[in-house]
Amino acid sequence: MNIEEFFQLSAGKWFSHRTSHHLAFNKSEDGKSDIIIEMLAADHPEVIKLCQLDEIIPNSAACGAKVTWNGTIEQDQKKHSGSTVLVLVPDVDKANEGKLLRETGDTKKALVTGHYKIGTDEALILTTESETICSEERLWFASPNLRMRVLVIKRADGFSTASFTSEIRMGGSPAAAKVSEAANPVSS
Amino acid sequence: MNIEEFFQLSAGKWFSHRTSHHLAFNKSEDGKSDIIIEMLAADHPEVIKLCQLDEIIPNSAACGAKVTWNGTIEQDQKKHSGSTVLVLVPDVDKANEGKLLRETGDTKKALVTGHYKIGTDEALILTTESETICSEERLWFASPNLRMRVLVIKRADGFSTASFTSEIRMGGSPAAAKVSEAANPVSS
Repeated sequence: MNIEEFFQLSAGKWFSHRTSHHLAFNKSEDGKSDIIIEMLAADHPEVIKLCQLDEIIPNSAACGAKVTWNGTIEQDQKKHSGSTVLVLVPDVDKANEGKLLRETGDTKKALVTGHYKIGTDEALILTTESETICSEERLWFASPNLRMRVLVIKRADGFSTASFTSEIRMGGSPAAAKVSEAANPVSS
Repeated sequence: MNIEEFFQLSAGKWFSHRTSHHLAFNKSEDGKSDIIIEMLAADHPEVIKLCQLDEIIPNSAACGAKVTWNGTIEQDQKKHSGSTVLVLVPDVDKANEGKLLRETGDTKKALVTGHYKIGTDEALILTTESETICSEERLWFASPNLRMRVLVIKRADGFSTASFTSEIRMGGSPAAAKVSEAANPVSS
């Protein structure tokens, strides 16, 4: 699976259930959201905008994705909604890894950059690192309609969080059928 | 990392926090345990016993492990404790995979068999399959003192569970220092 195929398979509407383990406190917190993932072509205006912000030649991106969420966190029962755009720019000499650009929605720092890699096991690893925080997220498909994510965040103050998200497809992606044979049959 | 190194790094006392997502019901359930993992040599009587139950030549095992747990499940607040033994028997022609034997504690069927594989990303995958249930567990180290597990269970009746476990080392393993450089530095 390459990065375009990963986002083709991700496109659609998902029910997303996240549990965060706050490792220093042995506590967990649940959140549930509806998520819509739209794949963006390399020449989409949002993709071009992020490339320009990072001074990357726009047509060097493989693809992008817009992620929109609408949900609640168990503890406060408040609604949380928002959206972000991701752009994936492959390394010149490596087929399955490259630079990750992510829109923050913050006017002071509009862009976070990191790294992506598709492993030989077809999982996508996204890493970002700043002075105060390191994050590594692993995303993979247990089946075409069941996506999983594990995110480990380490803060400079030493407090770490490990979050697990199970995502069940609620609305179709035309690309899903094409790649179904490549997915793990355990939980189809 | 080979299978012996994986269990050397796993040996010790851990605080284990598991959250299960019951996918058909959008519900989650928390459990917390103290876990002790002891590595067993290929010639340990418990390893030999499991090999004999499966009619495998005892000295073909790479190693074994005894896992003992003592904890509570949030919902019922009852104590749950027990232990099991795992034995890993490498395939003759493959370095990093082979047969998994697991003691059930059930007098009718004392043994479950499956498959193990150490991936190129140093994660261990354990799979078992029966007429009524398929399970696939991925175990990996975010750092030498933080182990993660994701278990996907699919039942023949269609109800699936995805469980995430974060495990924090509470007591040392003499082997931990040796392999620390190989582990992911994100959450050391």
